[in-house]
Amino acid sequence: MRWSELDTANCPIARALSILGDRWTFMILRDCFSGVRRFEGFQANLGISRTILRDRLAQLVRAGILVQRPYQERPVRHDYVLTAKGKALNGIMLMLGEWGRTAVAGQPETQIRHQHESCGHILTPYVACAACGEEVVAKDVRAVRAFGRTG
Amino acid sequence: MRWSELDTANCPIARALSILGDRWTFMILRDCFSGVRRFEGFQANLGISRTILRDRLAQLVRAGILVQRPYQERPVRHDYVLTAKGKALNGIMLMLGEWGRTAVAGQPETQIRHQHESCGHILTPYVACAACGEEVVAKDVRAVRAFGRTG
Repeated sequence: MRWSELDTANCPIARALSILGDRWTFMILRDCFSGVRRFEGFQANLGISRTILRDRLAQLVRAGILVQRPYQERPVRHDYVLTAKGKALNGIMLMLGEWGRTAVAGQPETQIRHQHESCGHILTPYVACAACGEEVVAKDVRAVRAFGRTG
Repeated sequence: MRWSELDTANCPIARALSILGDRWTFMILRDCFSGVRRFEGFQANLGISRTILRDRLAQLVRAGILVQRPYQERPVRHDYVLTAKGKALNGIMLMLGEWGRTAVAGQPETQIRHQHESCGHILTPYVACAACGEEVVAKDVRAVRAFGRTG
């Protein structure tokens, strides 16, 4: 099947990007997975304007990726916590980091890795197929049109 | 280790995003993985301005993700082909699509899936750990500082 035959509106990647949007959104999500929860924490890490940060956090809350949770009553203060839908972005973030680590030149001597706590090793993530368990490489995947609501 | 202790400049995710940039870049890459190679093909699929498309394609070429290859001599015409560095983005794109498919509401009845040709099944991709082969979930990963050039 040629790409031109596929309806873009049916594309799950386009749908994902319609929410994830831009680089700042990804950077905020990176912070979320590292345990940052407070507005001031995101701001200190990312150094972006409060207006942009407020806007992107509000988008992530509207999309159901983050949820606001009060941690203080007077005055009311909220932090931002990943929902199940947000935690499901984990694989994307790990693969982004792995590509940044292995493919982008100029790595410094020290860099952030992840430890896979259930086995204890430094994590080298790869994408596998749920049906056969093998690593999935680009030449082995072919776009097809599927019917019915899934997931 | 707390996020605030980690140097952002050492973050592989930040490094990946410094190249991948914005939504259009991801959408162009989606098309590349679907076999689109020509300027006019990207433009027809994405419906973006020729200026933006030219700019993003040039960025992807400079970053070594796409390479220009002549397919016609008079006048000279190039198409855009994924390099090995570009093909290594496959896992990110598959995980973006999987999240779009399973987490974003409002899927149409027909949608794009991928077939894993080496086993024949419709692909449900997941991220696994190269050391133990198990699926990697968010609660099992912990950021650590690693030393030395790797990858």
